[in-house]
Amino acid sequence: MIVMTPQASEQQVEAVRERLARTGVHVVVMPGELTTAIGAIGDPQGVTELGLEGMDGVDRVVPISRPYKLASLELSHSAPTVIDVLGRRVGGGSTFCLIAGPCTVESRDQTIAVAQAVKAGGASMLRGGAFKPRTSPFAFHGLGREALEVLAEARAATGLPIVTEFLDATHADLVREHADVLQIGARNMQNYALLEVAGKLGRPVLLKRGLSASLDELLQAADYVLKGGADVILCERGIRTFETATRFTLDLGAVPWLKLHTHLPVIVDPSHAAGDRRLVEALSKGAAAVGADGLIVEVHEDPTAALCDGAQSLYASDFAAFSRTVLAHAGLEGKQLA
Amino acid sequence: MIVMTPQASEQQVEAVRERLARTGVHVVVMPGELTTAIGAIGDPQGVTELGLEGMDGVDRVVPISRPYKLASLELSHSAPTVIDVLGRRVGGGSTFCLIAGPCTVESRDQTIAVAQAVKAGGASMLRGGAFKPRTSPFAFHGLGREALEVLAEARAATGLPIVTEFLDATHADLVREHADVLQIGARNMQNYALLEVAGKLGRPVLLKRGLSASLDELLQAADYVLKGGADVILCERGIRTFETATRFTLDLGAVPWLKLHTHLPVIVDPSHAAGDRRLVEALSKGAAAVGADGLIVEVHEDPTAALCDGAQSLYASDFAAFSRTVLAHAGLEGKQLA
Amino acid sequence: MIVMTPQASEQQVEAVRERLARTGVHVVVMPGELTTAIGAIGDPQGVTELGLEGMDGVDRVVPISRPYKLASLELSHSAPTVIDVLGRRVGGGSTFCLIAGPCTVESRDQTIAVAQAVKAGGASMLRGGAFKPRTSPFAFHGLGREALEVLAEARAATGLPIVTEFLDATHADLVREHADVLQIGARNMQNYALLEVAGKLGRPVLLKRGLSASLDELLQAADYVLKGGADVILCERGIRTFETATRFTLDLGAVPWLKLHTHLPVIVDPSHAAGDRRLVEALSKGAAAVGADGLIVEVHEDPTAALCDGAQSLYASDFAAFSRTVLAHAGLEGKQLA
Amino acid sequence: MIVMTPQASEQQVEAVRERLARTGVHVVVMPGELTTAIGAIGDPQGVTELGLEGMDGVDRVVPISRPYKLASLELSHSAPTVIDVLGRRVGGGSTFCLIAGPCTVESRDQTIAVAQAVKAGGASMLRGGAFKPRTSPFAFHGLGREALEVLAEARAATGLPIVTEFLDATHADLVREHADVLQIGARNMQNYALLEVAGKLGRPVLLKRGLSASLDELLQAADYVLKGGADVILCERGIRTFETATRFTLDLGAVPWLKLHTHLPVIVDPSHAAGDRRLVEALSKGAAAVGADGLIVEVHEDPTAALCDGAQSLYASDFAAFSRTVLAHAGLEGKQLA
Repeated sequence: MIVMTPQASEQQVEAVRERLARTGVHVVVMPGELTTAIGAIGDPQGVTELGLEGMDGVDRVVPISRPYKLASLELSHSAPTVIDVLGRRVGGGSTFCLIAGPCTVESRDQTIAVAQAVKAGGASMLRGGAFKPRTSPFAFHGLGREALEVLAEARAATGLPIVTEFLDATHADLVREHADVLQIGARNMQNYALLEVAGKLGRPVLLKRGLSASLDELLQAADYVLKGGADVILCERGIRTFETATRFTLDLGAVPWLKLHTHLPVIVDPSHAAGDRRLVEALSKGAAAVGADGLIVEVHEDPTAALCDGAQSLYASDFAAFSRTVLAHAGLEGKQLA
Repeated sequence: MIVMTPQASEQQVEAVRERLARTGVHVVVMPGELTTAIGAIGDPQGVTELGLEGMDGVDRVVPISRPYKLASLELSHSAPTVIDVLGRRVGGGSTFCLIAGPCTVESRDQTIAVAQAVKAGGASMLRGGAFKPRTSPFAFHGLGREALEVLAEARAATGLPIVTEFLDATHADLVREHADVLQIGARNMQNYALLEVAGKLGRPVLLKRGLSASLDELLQAADYVLKGGADVILCERGIRTFETATRFTLDLGAVPWLKLHTHLPVIVDPSHAAGDRRLVEALSKGAAAVGADGLIVEVHEDPTAALCDGAQSLYASDFAAFSRTVLAHAGLEGKQLA
Repeated sequence: MIVMTPQASEQQVEAVRERLARTGVHVVVMPGELTTAIGAIGDPQGVTELGLEGMDGVDRVVPISRPYKLASLELSHSAPTVIDVLGRRVGGGSTFCLIAGPCTVESRDQTIAVAQAVKAGGASMLRGGAFKPRTSPFAFHGLGREALEVLAEARAATGLPIVTEFLDATHADLVREHADVLQIGARNMQNYALLEVAGKLGRPVLLKRGLSASLDELLQAADYVLKGGADVILCERGIRTFETATRFTLDLGAVPWLKLHTHLPVIVDPSHAAGDRRLVEALSKGAAAVGADGLIVEVHEDPTAALCDGAQSLYASDFAAFSRTVLAHAGLEGKQLA
Repeated sequence: MIVMTPQASEQQVEAVRERLARTGVHVVVMPGELTTAIGAIGDPQGVTELGLEGMDGVDRVVPISRPYKLASLELSHSAPTVIDVLGRRVGGGSTFCLIAGPCTVESRDQTIAVAQAVKAGGASMLRGGAFKPRTSPFAFHGLGREALEVLAEARAATGLPIVTEFLDATHADLVREHADVLQIGARNMQNYALLEVAGKLGRPVLLKRGLSASLDELLQAADYVLKGGADVILCERGIRTFETATRFTLDLGAVPWLKLHTHLPVIVDPSHAAGDRRLVEALSKGAAAVGADGLIVEVHEDPTAALCDGAQSLYASDFAAFSRTVLAHAGLEGKQLA
């Protein structure tokens, strides 16, 4: 839909009409009282790329179609996608997937201990960072390959699938070898080079929403991965707003909105959004109640000694109780632990 | 806490120290490797008003104390406040208050019909607008006094207390006479003249968070009302962010944060946040699960014919089912219908 | 423009078409490949109020016309408005209006001294607060009537017109009597009761943009005042964003955008946006260069002793040099001191 | 600075004090009326990593030192950095660097024509995209190697240094071979893997601010590049806010703020911020007036036929006039064309 300025001349309207017509779309000119609007029916991507906003007399171009394709519920699927990860089912409405574990793998013993605690407490998968994106180049960046080997050992010990962050294309082989789900972090949501690599590794991708990414952009980023052939699990993890009381603003309204528009599973990360352990359980229950397909939470044996994100990590000793109360809300929504 | 620039001279540090000392606060100078910080212990309001940021060599002033007083859980109360509105208890942790009704009173018959429907469906109070703040001066602004009389009649018919918006000090007597709870809308949250009048009318005030108000500012606005003697019910109703998929971004993390910091009841308005009926139930369940003390939702007999906010109003015929599913989540949090 | 969901049935499209047709607007149905769009040509306000978003099968309603009327350059004027304030001309493109003075009137002597300093330094008008909106109810709120009398005396001494904030309808007579321009603060931009009163006082209104107000909403707020008959000067003063390095984010892009869409003069307040004196001169020059019609800045004899906003106030002794450098940039844009 | 909750016990304060003391920093405990604050003087990075927010009784951790090091004016340099690019000097306060060219290289002829036009109009360097990050995977992504060869040819023809985007580590050799300045786009500002590669290629890096990156984070991202040895030119290009009238909100206040805190040159991209050609000249003049060291703008022979960003590209035929008016403002700030 192209909206002309009130002063646009007939020639300017005609120039836009003609430019559109040349691309093969069907064009409808609608002269209004104040402004003329021109509808272009057909190839929305093509029309967007024309840059008609720059033509004389054009005030705005208002896209009518949603910009994503493969992630679209309406265009690509008639039903929600269910992803199977070593037997755990994610998405589809009847399961709730509880991913838990430490922010970062600090040592073999710490990781095995947390893995056993979250397994006992009801977790569906184990998370743990091997490579950590840090705002400062002078901060701790993870143990790398060694951490991945520890995670694989934890999987062997507990049977839990492994979720770990993939943040550098040069780690592709390493990460594919050791992990079952590859996480793309919020800061890399629009790192298209990485998304394309991730889409071709044959592992489901857990795609976190960027700090200031719109939901349309999140689904376009998912399109990058889906185009490569991989499955995608979306993750709402808080957006950046003016409010600083919580570290980010968890956008729980995104969950039911995504359910209307995409077939992909949607989980929630309450830990990074809150930045404060005292808020994590409430947000987790809220996520279950708005219809999320699962959670990814940080858990640590001794959060006050954690190398990163200690403030927001749950105590491993509290995890079973946490799990029960969250699953009670998920149960009201017809979901059982994945 | 006053932070000096790295280049600040000893004289500049001394000038700040002396200025603080003259106000009677206790001063601690902490020379660091890079910058000197100066702690001022005592009257935070007084220190903030000094405008020390303007002194030579000062980089920033970082407030350490929270800026609100009467609304503070720590400073003013040891327990949550419970507000009694014609026998309905709001706050305190064991009740869930369901306020429902039309955006605006359109006619006597419509209002009585909705009132009876929400009463039957389990509402605790009836909401309805008599005076409507509208972004455009050319839009419908409510029926005024006539609407208030209709609301009073609906109360007589159903026993439901009345919640209505108070937006102009000249309506004070009229509104106090007919309503049980006075709502201050988001756009008036920092209309201090109105807050002061509202605080003295002898009715509880339902204070909505401003579109871009921080939680600290919400509690300072509550201080204005509390200072006048009235009770306050806080209401999270969505903040303005970059995301436009939903009309506003409902900040459900605000609920548990507020529970840590204030003794006041906290309810949630999912209707205005969503701007879309299809999202309202999910957000309402989320609000119950994160620990809100209640909801305020828009309900209409025939939303597609509503004079305002039809897109986000629930059908009256769906209200009983809505109420049941939301109360199930509230029940898991130990709350029963108020 | 009403956009249907991809699954909308023909009956749903027809129901929307019929509802629109009944209001008398001209309707165009445009079936696309994926979704059907329905254009409504005629009364945009009326269509917005229908709440069509709530009808079955409707995905979104996309407004095509701008929502303001009286403030519109296209609809209401063919040329910029020029406002005459005691001989100073604001707007129109050939003048630059420099409004300067203290945040608040603290005493007679302070105010007269600053007034004479800014007059000597080239100010066009004097600003000064008599009633101050403060976030905390426990902060200093201004000297009220006494301050207004001091301002009137400063006007007599210097010939400078007086700009002061109007924040409570009960002050209407008092403020109209003593001031030449009535300022509506950012927090009251959507206090419609106040805007309506302000529009009828026979004085130009300096309307500050709300902290999170879109430019469309600013112009709709201006419509409220213009409807009452008063002239309006718009003021960009920084919006609330995630960035906290500056107190607000000064949106200088708003100035040329407003010049395309409204006939009203546009000035800039760099002091409140910056919150830091060291940034005020740069932002003032930027405002002149992007085409603003003037500035409103805080100036104090001794900012480090100011009762409010000391950190962002310019030293009176620096004002003449500040004025020269800003006017040099304004001069390149063809503007001379008003 | 660690702020305890008002209810924190003496043991909790002591636990924090002890934990800090063990890391070797100097600790000052400041018991206040309401809360106790604990100052840690020494290694700020180390203290941040402790995750003290998670300890019992801790309310908040307030960082006092700025988190960046190499980019800091105070810590790393006593004077602004001047970067020499084939004889053009960027930074230092006496030059203004005008980088201009098409969004993307579409063909040899188009590129050479624009290069000659901007050279004639006074540009300092030529920009042009070979690899384009696009929100949708189905959009045009640039001509790649072929585009780089065209740019090199344009450099040979005009003598203008080449600025092009670097967005995939696998392009490192290709881009280093053909370009003089490597641009890191806003969406990759926190793609740390890419920053590290870019820092080691021996070319200055033009680092664009992320859409929702704070200025502190921008300088930390610069630290990543500086650590590798490369020079950095910072670029403000608009941030994402609630306002949609302009595509992004150009934060011109960032320029003087950065000048206070970093030694690095700061330029401005008005084209992407505005998203509308009609605003670009005003914003460019504003950028010059607030003290920017230069601009990067999009220019096209025939913007209405451009493959990307046509709406915001200047006409090549207008560039000389644009250049003159912008340089007049830069001239008032003591800067001459680089």
